[in-house]
Amino acid sequence: MNKYKIVLEYDGSNYVGWQKQENGKSIQESIEIAIQKLIGEKTIVHGAGRTDSGVHAKEQVAHFEINKIFETDKIRDGLNQYLRSETIAVLKAEKVNEDFHARFSAKLRYYQYRVINRRPHLTLENNRAWCVHKKLDIKKILKESTYFEGKHDFESFRSIDCQSAKSVKTINFFLVNLQDDNITFNVCAKSFLHSQVRIMVGTLIDIGKGIIKRPLLEIIESKKRSFAGTTAPAHGLYLKKIDY
Amino acid sequence: MNKYKIVLEYDGSNYVGWQKQENGKSIQESIEIAIQKLIGEKTIVHGAGRTDSGVHAKEQVAHFEINKIFETDKIRDGLNQYLRSETIAVLKAEKVNEDFHARFSAKLRYYQYRVINRRPHLTLENNRAWCVHKKLDIKKILKESTYFEGKHDFESFRSIDCQSAKSVKTINFFLVNLQDDNITFNVCAKSFLHSQVRIMVGTLIDIGKGIIKRPLLEIIESKKRSFAGTTAPAHGLYLKKIDY
Repeated sequence: MNKYKIVLEYDGSNYVGWQKQENGKSIQESIEIAIQKLIGEKTIVHGAGRTDSGVHAKEQVAHFEINKIFETDKIRDGLNQYLRSETIAVLKAEKVNEDFHARFSAKLRYYQYRVINRRPHLTLENNRAWCVHKKLDIKKILKESTYFEGKHDFESFRSIDCQSAKSVKTINFFLVNLQDDNITFNVCAKSFLHSQVRIMVGTLIDIGKGIIKRPLLEIIESKKRSFAGTTAPAHGLYLKKIDY
Repeated sequence: MNKYKIVLEYDGSNYVGWQKQENGKSIQESIEIAIQKLIGEKTIVHGAGRTDSGVHAKEQVAHFEINKIFETDKIRDGLNQYLRSETIAVLKAEKVNEDFHARFSAKLRYYQYRVINRRPHLTLENNRAWCVHKKLDIKKILKESTYFEGKHDFESFRSIDCQSAKSVKTINFFLVNLQDDNITFNVCAKSFLHSQVRIMVGTLIDIGKGIIKRPLLEIIESKKRSFAGTTAPAHGLYLKKIDY
Protein backbone atom coordinates (compact mmCIF):
# COMPACT_ATOMS: atom_id res chain seq x y z
CA MET A 1 0.00 0.00 0.00
CA ASN A 2 1.08 3.60 -0.67
CA LYS A 3 0.39 6.27 1.91
CA TYR A 4 -0.23 9.90 1.03
CA LYS A 5 -0.52 12.97 3.22
CA ILE A 6 -2.68 15.84 1.96
CA VAL A 7 -2.99 19.40 3.25
CA LEU A 8 -6.52 20.78 2.96
CA GLU A 9 -8.14 24.19 3.05
CA TYR A 10 -11.90 24.52 3.46
CA ASP A 11 -14.79 26.80 4.18
CA GLY A 12 -16.78 24.62 6.59
CA SER A 13 -20.05 26.57 6.27
CA ASN A 14 -21.93 24.05 4.15
CA TYR A 15 -20.74 20.81 5.73
CA VAL A 16 -21.80 18.77 8.75
CA GLY A 17 -18.14 18.90 9.82
CA TRP A 18 -15.05 16.85 9.08
CA GLN A 19 -16.46 13.47 10.03
CA LYS A 20 -18.79 11.34 7.92
CA GLN A 21 -22.35 11.44 9.21
CA GLU A 22 -25.80 10.31 8.19
CA ASN A 23 -27.35 13.77 8.28
CA GLY A 24 -25.44 15.55 5.53
CA LYS A 25 -22.28 16.09 3.51
CA SER A 26 -19.00 15.96 5.42
CA ILE A 27 -15.52 17.12 4.38
CA GLN A 28 -14.18 13.59 4.87
CA GLU A 29 -16.75 11.99 2.60
CA SER A 30 -16.34 14.66 -0.10
CA ILE A 31 -12.61 13.89 -0.28
CA GLU A 32 -13.17 10.12 -0.23
CA ILE A 33 -15.54 10.50 -3.20
CA ALA A 34 -12.96 12.62 -5.07
CA ILE A 35 -10.27 9.99 -4.42
CA GLN A 36 -12.54 7.23 -5.68
CA LYS A 37 -13.27 9.21 -8.87
CA LEU A 38 -9.62 10.05 -9.49
CA ILE A 39 -7.89 6.87 -8.43
CA GLY A 40 -10.65 4.32 -8.70
CA GLU A 41 -10.08 2.99 -5.21
CA LYS A 42 -12.31 3.15 -2.16
CA THR A 43 -10.33 4.35 0.82
CA ILE A 44 -10.75 5.99 4.21
CA VAL A 45 -9.34 9.49 4.73
CA HIS A 46 -8.01 10.08 8.26
CA GLY A 47 -7.91 13.70 9.43
CA ALA A 48 -5.67 15.28 12.06
CA GLY A 49 -8.59 17.02 13.75
CA ARG A 50 -12.33 16.49 13.58
CA THR A 51 -13.60 19.98 12.93
CA ASP A 52 -17.26 20.61 13.79
CA SER A 53 -19.89 21.84 11.34
CA GLY A 54 -19.11 25.40 10.26
CA VAL A 55 -15.47 25.32 11.41
CA HIS A 56 -12.95 26.26 8.70
CA ALA A 57 -9.46 24.97 7.95
CA LYS A 58 -6.45 26.76 6.53
CA GLU A 59 -4.22 23.70 6.71
CA GLN A 60 -6.00 20.59 7.88
CA VAL A 61 -3.89 17.45 7.36
CA ALA A 62 -5.17 14.03 6.36
CA HIS A 63 -3.78 10.75 5.06
CA PHE A 64 -5.03 7.80 3.02
CA GLU A 65 -3.67 4.58 1.57
CA ILE A 66 -4.07 3.30 -1.99
CA ASN A 67 -2.72 0.41 -4.04
CA LYS A 68 -1.64 2.49 -7.01
CA ILE A 69 1.33 4.83 -7.05
CA PHE A 70 0.43 8.37 -8.07
CA GLU A 71 2.57 11.44 -8.64
CA THR A 72 1.84 13.86 -5.80
CA ASP A 73 1.20 16.81 -8.16
CA LYS A 74 -1.37 14.69 -9.97
CA ILE A 75 -3.07 13.81 -6.69
CA ARG A 76 -3.32 17.49 -5.76
CA ASP A 77 -4.50 18.72 -9.18
CA GLY A 78 -6.69 15.68 -9.86
CA LEU A 79 -8.51 15.84 -6.53
CA ASN A 80 -9.01 19.58 -7.02
CA GLN A 81 -10.68 18.90 -10.38
CA TYR A 82 -13.31 16.83 -8.56
CA LEU A 83 -13.52 19.23 -5.60
CA ARG A 84 -13.94 22.38 -7.70
CA SER A 85 -17.67 22.64 -6.98
CA GLU A 86 -17.03 22.17 -3.25
CA THR A 87 -15.49 24.72 -0.87
CA ILE A 88 -12.60 22.30 -0.24
CA ALA A 89 -9.17 22.45 -1.89
CA VAL A 90 -6.06 20.27 -1.67
CA LEU A 91 -3.08 22.58 -1.13
CA LYS A 92 -0.39 19.90 -1.11
CA ALA A 93 0.07 16.16 -1.48
CA GLU A 94 3.08 14.22 -0.26
CA LYS A 95 4.08 10.56 -0.13
CA VAL A 96 4.72 9.46 3.46
CA ASN A 97 6.05 6.41 5.29
CA GLU A 98 3.62 3.80 6.49
CA ASP A 99 4.12 4.81 10.13
CA PHE A 100 2.74 8.32 9.48
CA HIS A 101 -0.73 8.95 10.90
CA ALA A 102 -2.42 12.34 10.40
CA ARG A 103 -4.04 12.18 13.82
CA PHE A 104 -1.63 10.20 16.01
CA SER A 105 1.65 11.59 14.62
CA ALA A 106 0.55 15.20 15.18
CA LYS A 107 2.87 17.05 17.59
CA LEU A 108 1.14 20.42 17.76
CA ARG A 109 -2.21 21.80 16.64
CA TYR A 110 -2.73 25.51 15.93
CA TYR A 111 -6.17 27.08 15.97
CA GLN A 112 -7.24 30.61 15.22
CA TYR A 113 -10.46 32.25 16.36
CA ARG A 114 -11.61 35.51 14.77
CA VAL A 115 -13.91 38.00 16.51
CA ILE A 116 -14.98 41.31 15.00
CA ASN A 117 -16.24 43.76 17.62
CA ARG A 118 -18.57 46.26 15.97
CA ARG A 119 -22.20 47.31 15.91
CA PRO A 120 -22.93 46.80 12.19
CA HIS A 121 -23.48 43.24 10.94
CA LEU A 122 -20.75 41.63 8.81
CA THR A 123 -20.80 41.63 5.02
CA LEU A 124 -17.42 40.70 3.52
CA GLU A 125 -16.49 38.69 6.62
CA ASN A 126 -19.86 37.03 7.03
CA ASN A 127 -19.33 33.40 8.18
CA ARG A 128 -15.61 34.17 8.52
CA ALA A 129 -15.66 35.69 12.01
CA TRP A 130 -17.93 36.03 15.04
CA CYS A 131 -19.45 39.49 15.10
CA VAL A 132 -19.80 40.68 18.71
CA HIS A 133 -21.89 43.84 18.73
CA LYS A 134 -21.45 44.96 22.35
CA LYS A 135 -18.33 47.04 23.03
CA LEU A 136 -15.81 44.78 24.74
CA ASP A 137 -13.36 45.55 27.54
CA ILE A 138 -10.27 44.53 25.56
CA LYS A 139 -7.82 45.23 28.39
CA LYS A 140 -9.64 42.78 30.62
CA ILE A 141 -9.67 40.14 27.86
CA LEU A 142 -5.93 40.58 27.27
CA LYS A 143 -5.15 40.34 30.99
CA GLU A 144 -7.34 37.29 31.69
CA SER A 145 -6.32 35.41 28.54
CA THR A 146 -2.79 34.86 29.87
CA TYR A 147 -4.14 32.44 32.50
CA PHE A 148 -4.94 29.85 29.83
CA GLU A 149 -1.29 29.17 29.02
CA GLY A 150 0.42 26.17 30.62
CA LYS A 151 -0.87 22.90 32.07
CA HIS A 152 -4.37 22.98 33.56
CA ASP A 153 -7.38 20.83 34.15
CA PHE A 154 -9.76 22.21 31.50
CA GLU A 155 -12.87 20.47 32.86
CA SER A 156 -14.71 23.84 32.78
CA PHE A 157 -13.87 24.27 29.11
CA ARG A 158 -15.17 21.17 27.42
CA SER A 159 -18.49 20.35 25.86
CA ILE A 160 -20.78 17.95 27.71
CA ASP A 161 -20.36 15.65 24.67
CA CYS A 162 -16.59 15.45 25.19
CA GLN A 163 -15.54 11.82 25.47
CA SER A 164 -11.96 12.33 26.56
CA ALA A 165 -11.08 10.35 29.71
CA LYS A 166 -8.80 13.10 31.02
CA SER A 167 -9.30 16.86 30.95
CA VAL A 168 -5.73 17.99 31.71
CA LYS A 169 -4.16 19.74 28.71
CA THR A 170 -1.13 21.94 28.12
CA ILE A 171 -1.66 25.15 26.18
CA ASN A 172 1.66 26.11 24.55
CA PHE A 173 0.44 29.60 23.78
CA PHE A 174 -2.76 31.62 23.82
CA LEU A 175 -2.14 34.92 22.06
CA VAL A 176 -4.54 37.77 21.38
CA ASN A 177 -3.93 39.99 18.38
CA LEU A 178 -5.74 43.31 17.93
CA GLN A 179 -6.16 45.22 14.69
CA ASP A 180 -8.85 47.89 14.49
CA ASP A 181 -12.06 46.05 15.45
CA ASN A 182 -10.56 42.60 14.74
CA ILE A 183 -9.64 40.42 17.71
CA THR A 184 -7.78 37.27 16.72
CA PHE A 185 -7.03 34.50 19.19
CA ASN A 186 -4.14 32.19 18.31
CA VAL A 187 -3.96 29.00 20.33
CA CYS A 188 -1.52 26.10 20.21
CA ALA A 189 -1.48 22.74 22.01
CA LYS A 190 -0.68 19.09 21.33
CA SER A 191 -4.39 18.35 21.57
CA PHE A 192 -7.65 19.90 22.72
CA LEU A 193 -10.87 18.79 24.40
CA HIS A 194 -14.14 18.92 22.45
CA SER A 195 -15.15 22.59 21.85
CA GLN A 196 -12.30 23.73 24.10
CA VAL A 197 -11.14 26.65 21.94
CA ARG A 198 -14.70 27.84 21.37
CA ILE A 199 -15.51 27.75 25.11
CA MET A 200 -12.20 29.46 25.98
CA VAL A 201 -12.95 32.28 23.52
CA GLY A 202 -16.63 32.47 24.48
CA THR A 203 -15.68 32.81 28.15
CA LEU A 204 -13.23 35.63 27.42
CA ILE A 205 -15.89 37.42 25.38
CA ASP A 206 -18.39 37.07 28.26
CA ILE A 207 -15.70 38.52 30.56
CA GLY A 208 -15.16 41.38 28.07
CA LYS A 209 -18.91 42.04 28.00
CA GLY A 210 -19.03 42.11 31.81
CA ILE A 211 -21.46 39.15 31.91
CA ILE A 212 -18.89 37.01 33.73
CA LYS A 213 -17.31 38.74 36.70
CA ARG A 214 -15.33 35.81 38.14
CA PRO A 215 -11.58 35.86 37.42
CA LEU A 216 -10.57 33.30 34.80
CA LEU A 217 -8.30 31.48 37.26
CA GLU A 218 -11.28 30.81 39.51
CA ILE A 219 -13.26 29.44 36.55
CA ILE A 220 -10.39 27.10 35.66
CA GLU A 221 -9.99 25.93 39.26
CA SER A 222 -13.74 25.40 39.74
CA LYS A 223 -13.77 22.57 37.14
CA LYS A 224 -17.39 23.48 36.47
CA ARG A 225 -18.64 24.00 32.92
CA SER A 226 -21.38 26.24 34.31
CA PHE A 227 -18.78 28.73 35.59
CA ALA A 228 -17.35 29.19 32.07
CA GLY A 229 -19.09 31.16 29.33
CA THR A 230 -20.88 30.63 26.08
CA THR A 231 -19.51 28.37 23.33
CA ALA A 232 -18.33 30.78 20.62
CA PRO A 233 -19.97 30.00 17.25
CA ALA A 234 -18.25 27.58 14.87
CA HIS A 235 -17.88 30.02 11.97
CA GLY A 236 -15.16 32.07 13.72
CA LEU A 237 -12.87 29.06 14.21
CA TYR A 238 -10.03 27.97 11.89
CA LEU A 239 -7.84 24.88 12.15
CA LYS A 240 -4.71 26.74 11.13
CA LYS A 241 -1.81 24.29 11.05
CA ILE A 242 -0.56 20.94 12.31
CA ASP A 243 3.07 20.25 13.20
CA TYR A 244 4.52 16.76 12.88
CA MET B 1 -33.58 69.63 3.98
CA ASN B 2 -31.07 67.70 6.07
CA LYS B 3 -28.10 66.06 4.39
CA TYR B 4 -26.45 62.90 5.70
CA LYS B 5 -23.24 61.17 4.69
CA ILE B 6 -23.06 57.40 5.17
CA VAL B 7 -20.05 55.07 4.94
CA LEU B 8 -20.93 51.67 3.49
CA GLU B 9 -19.34 48.24 3.39
CA TYR B 10 -20.62 45.59 1.00
CA ASP B 11 -20.01 42.27 -0.64
CA GLY B 12 -20.98 43.09 -4.23
CA SER B 13 -21.38 39.46 -5.35
CA ASN B 14 -25.15 39.37 -5.47
CA TYR B 15 -25.87 42.83 -6.87
CA VAL B 16 -25.98 44.33 -10.36
CA GLY B 17 -23.58 46.99 -9.03
CA TRP B 18 -23.95 50.29 -7.22
CA GLN B 19 -26.32 51.92 -9.66
CA LYS B 20 -30.07 51.28 -9.95
CA GLN B 21 -30.89 49.15 -12.98
CA GLU B 22 -33.85 47.36 -14.47
CA ASN B 23 -32.18 43.96 -14.52
CA GLY B 24 -31.70 43.27 -10.83
CA LYS B 25 -31.04 44.46 -7.32
CA SER B 26 -28.50 47.27 -6.91
CA ILE B 27 -26.73 48.54 -3.80
CA GLN B 28 -28.19 52.01 -4.33
CA GLU B 29 -31.78 50.77 -4.50
CA SER B 30 -31.34 48.49 -1.46
CA ILE B 31 -30.25 51.49 0.61
CA GLU B 32 -33.01 53.73 -0.73
CA ILE B 33 -35.56 51.07 0.28
CA ALA B 34 -34.03 50.84 3.77
CA ILE B 35 -34.18 54.65 4.11
CA GLN B 36 -37.82 54.70 3.06
CA LYS B 37 -38.67 52.00 5.60
CA LEU B 38 -36.77 53.69 8.43
CA ILE B 39 -37.51 57.36 7.76
CA GLY B 40 -40.67 57.21 5.70
CA GLU B 41 -39.26 59.41 2.96
CA LYS B 42 -38.42 58.61 -0.63
CA THR B 43 -34.95 59.88 -1.46
CA ILE B 44 -32.08 59.37 -3.87
CA VAL B 45 -28.79 58.05 -2.52
CA HIS B 46 -25.73 59.46 -4.32
CA GLY B 47 -22.58 57.33 -4.19
CA ALA B 48 -18.96 58.46 -4.50
CA GLY B 49 -18.15 55.73 -7.02
CA ARG B 50 -20.33 53.55 -9.23
CA THR B 51 -18.96 50.11 -8.51
CA ASP B 52 -19.74 47.42 -11.12
CA SER B 53 -21.53 44.17 -10.42
CA GLY B 54 -19.40 41.95 -8.19
CA VAL B 55 -17.11 44.75 -6.99
CA HIS B 56 -16.89 45.09 -3.20
CA ALA B 57 -16.57 48.10 -0.94
CA LYS B 58 -14.82 48.50 2.38
CA GLU B 59 -15.73 52.19 2.72
CA GLN B 60 -17.97 53.45 -0.06
CA VAL B 61 -19.40 56.88 0.73
CA ALA B 62 -22.87 58.14 -0.15
CA HIS B 63 -25.17 61.00 0.79
CA PHE B 64 -28.91 61.66 0.84
CA GLU B 65 -31.29 64.41 1.87
CA ILE B 66 -34.39 64.11 4.05
CA ASN B 67 -36.90 66.48 5.62
CA LYS B 68 -36.71 64.95 9.09
CA ILE B 69 -33.79 65.31 11.48
CA PHE B 70 -32.44 61.99 12.68
CA GLU B 71 -29.71 61.16 15.19
CA THR B 72 -26.78 59.75 13.22
CA ASP B 73 -26.46 56.66 15.46
CA LYS B 74 -30.13 55.92 14.79
CA ILE B 75 -29.60 56.24 11.05
CA ARG B 76 -26.71 53.78 11.18
CA ASP B 77 -28.41 51.25 13.46
CA GLY B 78 -31.85 51.71 11.90
CA LEU B 79 -30.66 51.23 8.33
CA ASN B 80 -28.66 48.18 9.42
CA GLN B 81 -31.85 46.65 10.87
CA TYR B 82 -33.38 46.79 7.39
CA LEU B 83 -30.15 45.77 5.63
CA ARG B 84 -29.48 42.75 7.83
CA SER B 85 -30.60 40.26 5.19
CA GLU B 86 -28.43 42.01 2.56
CA THR B 87 -24.64 41.92 2.30
CA ILE B 88 -24.57 45.68 2.85
CA ALA B 89 -23.83 47.44 6.14
CA VAL B 90 -23.74 51.09 7.20
CA LEU B 91 -20.50 51.64 9.14
CA LYS B 92 -21.04 55.29 9.96
CA ALA B 93 -23.55 58.11 9.49
CA GLU B 94 -22.78 61.80 9.78
CA LYS B 95 -24.69 65.06 9.28
CA VAL B 96 -23.04 67.18 6.59
CA ASN B 97 -23.41 70.68 5.11
CA GLU B 98 -25.60 71.16 2.09
CA ASP B 99 -22.57 71.74 -0.16
CA PHE B 100 -21.23 68.23 0.48
CA HIS B 101 -21.58 65.83 -2.44
CA ALA B 102 -20.38 62.23 -2.13
CA ARG B 103 -19.24 62.17 -5.76
CA PHE B 104 -18.18 65.72 -6.57
CA SER B 105 -16.55 66.60 -3.24
CA ALA B 106 -14.32 63.52 -3.33
CA LYS B 107 -10.62 64.42 -3.33
CA LEU B 108 -9.04 60.96 -3.57
CA ARG B 109 -10.31 57.48 -4.27
CA TYR B 110 -8.49 54.38 -3.03
CA TYR B 111 -9.02 51.00 -4.64
CA GLN B 112 -7.56 47.64 -3.74
CA TYR B 113 -7.29 44.63 -6.06
CA ARG B 114 -6.56 41.18 -4.62
CA VAL B 115 -4.94 38.39 -6.61
CA ILE B 116 -4.08 34.97 -5.20
CA ASN B 117 -1.50 33.15 -7.29
CA ARG B 118 -1.84 29.42 -6.71
CA ARG B 119 -2.84 26.23 -8.48
CA PRO B 120 -5.69 25.11 -6.19
CA HIS B 121 -9.03 26.88 -6.50
CA LEU B 122 -10.09 29.24 -3.70
CA THR B 123 -12.32 28.21 -0.80
CA LEU B 124 -12.25 30.72 2.07
CA GLU B 125 -11.38 33.57 -0.32
CA ASN B 126 -13.82 32.56 -3.04
CA ASN B 127 -15.34 35.73 -4.59
CA ARG B 128 -12.92 37.78 -2.48
CA ALA B 129 -9.89 37.63 -4.79
CA TRP B 130 -8.96 36.65 -8.35
CA CYS B 131 -7.30 33.25 -8.35
CA VAL B 132 -4.57 33.16 -11.02
CA HIS B 133 -3.40 29.58 -11.42
CA LYS B 134 -0.36 30.05 -13.63
CA LYS B 135 2.88 30.88 -11.79
CA LEU B 136 3.53 34.61 -12.25
CA ASP B 137 6.80 36.45 -12.79
CA ILE B 138 6.40 38.70 -9.76
CA LYS B 139 9.63 40.62 -10.31
CA LYS B 140 8.44 41.70 -13.74
CA ILE B 141 5.04 42.76 -12.35
CA LEU B 142 6.74 44.81 -9.62
CA LYS B 143 9.08 46.49 -12.09
CA GLU B 144 6.43 47.32 -14.71
CA SER B 145 3.81 48.46 -12.18
CA THR B 146 5.85 51.57 -11.32
CA TYR B 147 5.13 53.04 -14.78
CA PHE B 148 1.48 53.58 -13.87
CA GLU B 149 2.26 56.28 -11.33
CA GLY B 150 1.96 59.92 -12.37
CA LYS B 151 -0.01 61.71 -15.08
CA HIS B 152 -0.70 59.70 -18.23
CA ASP B 153 -3.21 59.33 -21.01
CA PHE B 154 -4.91 56.07 -19.98
CA GLU B 155 -6.74 55.54 -23.27
CA SER B 156 -5.37 51.95 -23.39
CA PHE B 157 -6.81 51.26 -19.96
CA ARG B 158 -10.49 52.07 -20.22
CA SER B 159 -13.48 49.99 -21.17
CA ILE B 160 -15.09 50.59 -24.56
CA ASP B 161 -18.19 51.66 -22.57
CA CYS B 162 -16.28 54.49 -20.88
CA GLN B 163 -18.08 57.78 -21.43
CA SER B 164 -15.44 60.13 -20.07
CA ALA B 165 -14.51 62.91 -22.53
CA LYS B 166 -10.86 62.87 -21.48
CA SER B 167 -8.60 59.93 -20.71
CA VAL B 168 -5.76 61.73 -18.92
CA LYS B 169 -5.60 60.80 -15.24
CA THR B 170 -3.06 61.16 -12.45
CA ILE B 171 -2.27 58.07 -10.42
CA ASN B 172 -1.04 59.19 -6.99
CA PHE B 173 0.28 55.76 -6.16
CA PHE B 174 0.17 52.23 -7.50
CA LEU B 175 1.67 49.89 -4.91
CA VAL B 176 2.07 46.13 -5.01
CA ASN B 177 2.11 44.22 -1.75
CA LEU B 178 3.23 40.59 -1.57
CA GLN B 179 2.44 38.12 1.18
CA ASP B 180 2.87 34.42 0.49
CA ASP B 181 0.71 33.79 -2.60
CA ASN B 182 -1.31 36.98 -2.10
CA ILE B 183 -0.63 39.91 -4.43
CA THR B 184 -2.46 43.07 -3.43
CA PHE B 185 -2.54 46.15 -5.65
CA ASN B 186 -3.27 49.45 -3.91
CA VAL B 187 -4.16 52.30 -6.20
CA CYS B 188 -5.04 55.92 -5.48
CA ALA B 189 -6.23 58.75 -7.74
CA LYS B 190 -8.69 61.63 -7.72
CA SER B 191 -10.78 59.72 -10.25
CA PHE B 192 -10.58 56.76 -12.62
CA LEU B 193 -11.84 55.80 -16.06
CA HIS B 194 -14.37 53.00 -16.43
CA SER B 195 -12.75 49.64 -15.57
CA GLN B 196 -9.36 51.36 -15.34
CA VAL B 197 -8.11 49.55 -12.24
CA ARG B 198 -9.29 46.18 -13.54
CA ILE B 199 -7.56 46.69 -16.91
CA MET B 200 -4.36 47.94 -15.22
CA VAL B 201 -4.26 44.85 -12.99
CA GLY B 202 -5.27 42.49 -15.82
CA THR B 203 -2.47 43.87 -18.01
CA LEU B 204 0.12 43.37 -15.27
CA ILE B 205 -1.08 39.81 -14.76
CA ASP B 206 -0.80 39.13 -18.51
CA ILE B 207 2.74 40.53 -18.34
CA GLY B 208 3.46 38.27 -15.34
CA LYS B 209 2.14 35.29 -17.28
CA GLY B 210 4.32 36.16 -20.28
CA ILE B 211 1.28 36.58 -22.56
CA ILE B 212 2.08 40.27 -23.04
CA LYS B 213 5.71 40.91 -23.96
CA ARG B 214 5.50 44.66 -24.68
CA PRO B 215 6.82 46.95 -21.96
CA LEU B 216 4.07 48.73 -20.04
CA LEU B 217 5.32 52.15 -21.09
CA GLU B 218 4.78 51.21 -24.74
CA ILE B 219 1.24 50.04 -23.96
CA ILE B 220 0.48 53.35 -22.24
CA GLU B 221 1.96 55.38 -25.10
CA SER B 222 0.14 53.35 -27.79
CA LYS B 223 -3.26 54.60 -26.55
CA LYS B 224 -4.73 51.37 -27.87
CA ARG B 225 -7.03 49.23 -25.70
CA SER B 226 -5.98 46.20 -27.79
CA PHE B 227 -2.36 46.55 -26.60
CA ALA B 228 -3.41 46.29 -22.96
CA GLY B 229 -4.48 43.02 -21.31
CA THR B 230 -7.56 41.33 -19.98
CA THR B 231 -10.03 43.09 -17.68
CA ALA B 232 -9.43 41.50 -14.28
CA PRO B 233 -12.67 40.05 -12.83
CA ALA B 234 -14.87 42.25 -10.65
CA HIS B 235 -14.75 40.02 -7.56
CA GLY B 236 -11.10 40.91 -6.79
CA LEU B 237 -11.77 44.65 -6.64
CA TYR B 238 -12.54 46.70 -3.51
CA LEU B 239 -13.45 50.37 -3.26
CA LYS B 240 -11.36 50.93 -0.16
CA LYS B 241 -11.70 54.54 0.91
CA ILE B 242 -12.64 58.06 -0.23
CA ASP B 243 -10.91 61.19 1.02
CA TYR B 244 -12.78 64.51 1.16
